[in-house]
Amino acid sequence: MRIRCSQSQLLYGINTVSKAVPSKTSMTILECILFTADEEGIKLTANDMEIGIETYIEGQVEVAGTVAIEAKIISNLIRSYSDEEFVIDSDEDNMVHIECGKSKLDIPGRSTEEFVLLPELDKADPVEISQFSIKELIRQTIFSISDNDTNKIMTGELFEIKGDQFKVVSLDGHRISVRNITLKKSYDDKSVIVPGKTLLELSKIIPGDVDKDVMIYLCENHVIFEYDSVKVVSRIIEGNYFKIDQMISNDYETKIDVSKKELLEVIQRSTLLVKEGDKKPIVFDVKDGTATLSINSSVGSMKDDLDIEKSGKDILIGFNPKFLIDALRVIDDESVTLYMVNPKAPCIIKNEDDSYLYLILPVNFTV
Amino acid sequence: MRIRCSQSQLLYGINTVSKAVPSKTSMTILECILFTADEEGIKLTANDMEIGIETYIEGQVEVAGTVAIEAKIISNLIRSYSDEEFVIDSDEDNMVHIECGKSKLDIPGRSTEEFVLLPELDKADPVEISQFSIKELIRQTIFSISDNDTNKIMTGELFEIKGDQFKVVSLDGHRISVRNITLKKSYDDKSVIVPGKTLLELSKIIPGDVDKDVMIYLCENHVIFEYDSVKVVSRIIEGNYFKIDQMISNDYETKIDVSKKELLEVIQRSTLLVKEGDKKPIVFDVKDGTATLSINSSVGSMKDDLDIEKSGKDILIGFNPKFLIDALRVIDDESVTLYMVNPKAPCIIKNEDDSYLYLILPVNFTV
Repeated sequence: MRIRCSQSQLLYGINTVSKAVPSKTSMTILECILFTADEEGIKLTANDMEIGIETYIEGQVEVAGTVAIEAKIISNLIRSYSDEEFVIDSDEDNMVHIECGKSKLDIPGRSTEEFVLLPELDKADPVEISQFSIKELIRQTIFSISDNDTNKIMTGELFEIKGDQFKVVSLDGHRISVRNITLKKSYDDKSVIVPGKTLLELSKIIPGDVDKDVMIYLCENHVIFEYDSVKVVSRIIEGNYFKIDQMISNDYETKIDVSKKELLEVIQRSTLLVKEGDKKPIVFDVKDGTATLSINSSVGSMKDDLDIEKSGKDILIGFNPKFLIDALRVIDDESVTLYMVNPKAPCIIKNEDDSYLYLILPVNFTV
Repeated sequence: MRIRCSQSQLLYGINTVSKAVPSKTSMTILECILFTADEEGIKLTANDMEIGIETYIEGQVEVAGTVAIEAKIISNLIRSYSDEEFVIDSDEDNMVHIECGKSKLDIPGRSTEEFVLLPELDKADPVEISQFSIKELIRQTIFSISDNDTNKIMTGELFEIKGDQFKVVSLDGHRISVRNITLKKSYDDKSVIVPGKTLLELSKIIPGDVDKDVMIYLCENHVIFEYDSVKVVSRIIEGNYFKIDQMISNDYETKIDVSKKELLEVIQRSTLLVKEGDKKPIVFDVKDGTATLSINSSVGSMKDDLDIEKSGKDILIGFNPKFLIDALRVIDDESVTLYMVNPKAPCIIKNEDDSYLYLILPVNFTV
């Protein structure tokens, strides 16, 4: 194989596919990026068996061929140059020669036989969504998946299509995040559970362009995301997702509108008084026009008054501050609305246009 | 005590003195900042017994008094507000009340009796040097102190005044850094060994203004740095420093001038081929007009040609790449000069105006 590429294209390709290179593995071939040069161009592939990513990069193929190169080494080496133009070639012993300016490097590559290619899947009827929207959907839900493998389904997110409605859901037993979006077209109803790790890596590499789309193929055992010249293939999580419509009620006794920024600032400050591992609730004392938020701990105590607009009953209710912070951080609107029933029932937080819904369980507290 | 201050003044003061708060200690009083309010103003002090820092901040003293507050908690709390105006008061039980906007906080303070105040020292004849220069002196030498306590003297830096010449030296057994500067005035000859830790913390808090001075008082057992409204007091290291003039020779057989940026880039890249803990040398093959730098390791091999200007003999010499990188990083000039005698003798690197000198021992290598 012999290719000629620019540093920026190489780094773009390596950074992109590296998200499918596991940080720890006993199978050293998984630490490699597969370089494929043929009449279709220069393709980089990485695959950790759960998630695989491939992308084409610009450049000239001088001799067709393939070689696998350890991702970390090639990434650091290419980055270390301030020159632009690279020639990478490999011989039959898989020795990789890199030339750039007056510099010459030799690093041992790997045979490509062991490398597990991405599965060839039947693709049909992709869901189209802007790069910006998919990034937002992930950002606003990814924090409430469970990192505990005992219930595998909780480590993923529900992707549910009903007509032109796309719903993304995550939950971890303490809270539920739901993000709804209206698609440009209607599709057949379908749903899959996408691993949280796949979404996290995808959201890191997707540029987030408002005018460019991602194609999402929901296949039988896989989900494929395609954008620009990048293809991300992931296994899906098998099983039925939780019936979240049954968990979310529209009834409430108290409704408050409050500035998101002010609420977030007070709750963030309250956590400074909570030692790691200590589960001190923040208590909301909701009256007409004012919510008094307070926390008491061994470190100290805090009382803050927030201006609110309230309808319904007064209420005294406690929450895990961290869980509130997680949701408030991903809401971009100026104000949020909280719907509460009683100190034991779930509270629901919505953003201004109701596209984002967050359900959080209150916690017990003593006054 | 009752004081009224702005957030920016409080944070400035807390950040400054916090550099003397130890990250780990069994004496919890050392984790505190002493607030002193009296007719002289509002003073913050921290002291870890090796280094002590105090600074005055702007604000109104409403009731004189003192209280000690845990540095980390007060720092995080003050930072968490987006409002400006704070009132901090403490009662006879050392309970600290903080008010800001509609927010009220109570945190337990500490009795000030245990707090160890900074020593009162006789100060005379300070050495004046700009904030910018002292920061530079430290940056260009601090990396070659030893972090090994077995030879205490190597953990500090020599500060030597001779007339109007100020020399700062550090060494760790593998290399020596020497920085010379001409002072604005002449002083009596004196020298002290200042702990590296003191210099590191000082360089973090000093603003680095070219037009503002630092006063350095070299006392019998202490060194004091004063600038703006800040005073840093540190113990010095007792003992006689190494006779470095005997170690540095002006004789050479080979002299090369080379672009600092290019040399640094090649050496940095070579370290990508060296695994952690592996001691692979980078070999310089110096001929007329060109130095070929090469490295060979289990990870791969590299060869780079650098344009140089050479006078004297050809030479083949090996170095620990990390030690070269450390020196080249702190030299700001476009080119550097290397003076070599033979592959076993020390190499000396100088910057363009010879104000910076770095001596490095070569290492054995096989070709």
